[in-house]
Amino acid sequence: MDDKVLLGHGSGGVMMRRIIDEVFFKAYETEELAQGNDAADLPLPQNGERLAYSTDSFVVTPQFFPGGDIGHLAICGTVNDVATSGAIPKYLSAAFILEEGYPIKDLQRICASMAKTAKEAGIHLVTGDTKVVNRGHGDGVFINTSGIGFIPKGRHLGGQFCKPGDKILVSGTLGDHGITIMSCREQLSFTTNLKSDAAPLNHMIQHVLEAAPDVRCFRDPTRGGLASTLNELAEQSGVNMEIEEDSVPIHDAVRGACDMLGYDVYQVANEGKMVCVVAPDEADAALKAMKEDPHGKDAAIIGEVQPKEEGHASRVTLRTGFGSTRILDMLVGEQLPRIC
Amino acid sequence: MDDKVLLGHGSGGVMMRRIIDEVFFKAYETEELAQGNDAADLPLPQNGERLAYSTDSFVVTPQFFPGGDIGHLAICGTVNDVATSGAIPKYLSAAFILEEGYPIKDLQRICASMAKTAKEAGIHLVTGDTKVVNRGHGDGVFINTSGIGFIPKGRHLGGQFCKPGDKILVSGTLGDHGITIMSCREQLSFTTNLKSDAAPLNHMIQHVLEAAPDVRCFRDPTRGGLASTLNELAEQSGVNMEIEEDSVPIHDAVRGACDMLGYDVYQVANEGKMVCVVAPDEADAALKAMKEDPHGKDAAIIGEVQPKEEGHASRVTLRTGFGSTRILDMLVGEQLPRIC
Repeated sequence: MDDKVLLGHGSGGVMMRRIIDEVFFKAYETEELAQGNDAADLPLPQNGERLAYSTDSFVVTPQFFPGGDIGHLAICGTVNDVATSGAIPKYLSAAFILEEGYPIKDLQRICASMAKTAKEAGIHLVTGDTKVVNRGHGDGVFINTSGIGFIPKGRHLGGQFCKPGDKILVSGTLGDHGITIMSCREQLSFTTNLKSDAAPLNHMIQHVLEAAPDVRCFRDPTRGGLASTLNELAEQSGVNMEIEEDSVPIHDAVRGACDMLGYDVYQVANEGKMVCVVAPDEADAALKAMKEDPHGKDAAIIGEVQPKEEGHASRVTLRTGFGSTRILDMLVGEQLPRIC
Repeated sequence: MDDKVLLGHGSGGVMMRRIIDEVFFKAYETEELAQGNDAADLPLPQNGERLAYSTDSFVVTPQFFPGGDIGHLAICGTVNDVATSGAIPKYLSAAFILEEGYPIKDLQRICASMAKTAKEAGIHLVTGDTKVVNRGHGDGVFINTSGIGFIPKGRHLGGQFCKPGDKILVSGTLGDHGITIMSCREQLSFTTNLKSDAAPLNHMIQHVLEAAPDVRCFRDPTRGGLASTLNELAEQSGVNMEIEEDSVPIHDAVRGACDMLGYDVYQVANEGKMVCVVAPDEADAALKAMKEDPHGKDAAIIGEVQPKEEGHASRVTLRTGFGSTRILDMLVGEQLPRIC
């Protein structure tokens, strides 16, 4: 096998076959992927389930970081997006845009990581694509994944279903992923114990739904962080939301980094956390189910949904330990580019 | 609206909302896309249909060329891959990797083109993603699309089903797309009348299947051209294939360009052509159905499937007008990088 990516690896010919056989197939070993046709041909459920469908591209830099790599992220991101609908994630596509000269061994490492994470999530990689761009016109490797899941009959989750009185949960500490990537990129040493939280959360979500069927929605607070996610949900449902600062789990290292660098931790990206809005009488059950999952052990109830004031836009506020409140805004510009 | 892509457009915050609302939503107007959740929630057929699923990234340069643009290509490529399975293409995802500084008006033009082609194909754009990379780390715009279609019960097409005696059809002239892109990139003037053939072929495929239900497979001879496609099919089915040179439709301008530049026209990429292998007694019906479609008017029966010699690998040969034959090999290296 060649040791670097060459333009011919994207050619549609013999060299592309070689990279597919020796890198991608070797990593994934999926029966469906080996069909060798232009589209994967797959069974569908016939019992009233619906389709969940999502896509994400990954351009994170650096591609390897404490707690993961771009491949791990590419599986987690799409699995989590599909799972937020309450679906069981089932099929995945993966498409690579490689820069000429990228080391094949790094690509193999990324693919091995994708295969491992896909296995943990129980999702099957069934179709893929490889393109190569000339040196200087890409950045090593970009990955797109799309994912398909099936939503059980009668299950309807969505950001539009939040009601005043509902409780807001988060499945763990905020900002770990964003601050890890940033400190890795800038070679800052104050965050040596910190690692990305990227994880597939579909199993946790299913456990929460079994314990608390009246969950209104899940959402993945990735780019834009918790603040942007809550603002989106509040607007979709036409409600306000209030968060108790002291209830929000945040690692000291993340808090320290944010203070020092002037980042708002509520706007920093997470890749292995889930926001969940749930009917008040099921909030404790949802919390317990989250905490029982290895990816949810630091879960907390952090706030509640409130009615929107008439004539005003939806608003998300943060109540501090001193009793004062401040508006939690959506991220406006860009805080940390290319964190996913 | 800003006139150039900024890093903040990929932030997950307010600026990303703006580009989504003002560029993407404005172009597509799909109800499903406006759901605003992490995954689209979609109905599934419940009558024994199967799922067809495919993905492709598009990195073509230049992004605008005679006969199309990267957006048109991104729809056609995935629609055609899904349609080769005999599926009716239904849902599409679109994910953009934009380079900081890319003109918003070009992006709008690309999106308008995508919306138009999706409408022609009858496919719904239901989920998307936007990432921005810093200047010098991408190349304007890369697009990934993935597509979902539903395969009618009892329909089983695939490259593994070709049998000796089957006829091989192609839906029109070869090499138009590859040579158009190349001449556009190199500013060659001998091909002024030439344009890309990129087109969604799903309706044509359905008409062929109605007329000739014993079609074994369709395949899209994109990267690697007809030669690579036929070699793939021959190998999947364990057969040989023979093509009659004089039957293969090729534009004079393409033939001239290939002669001059030393390209093998059988290895040049097409984006709006379909190879079809069909049972011998249905070949004429399949041809007639192709020719009745605006994208198939130059269709032709170009060869047939033959038994493989025992102990040898599958082989594709070309019989010339003089009666001699030559091996038609898979493309090995890269002839024309970034043509799709």
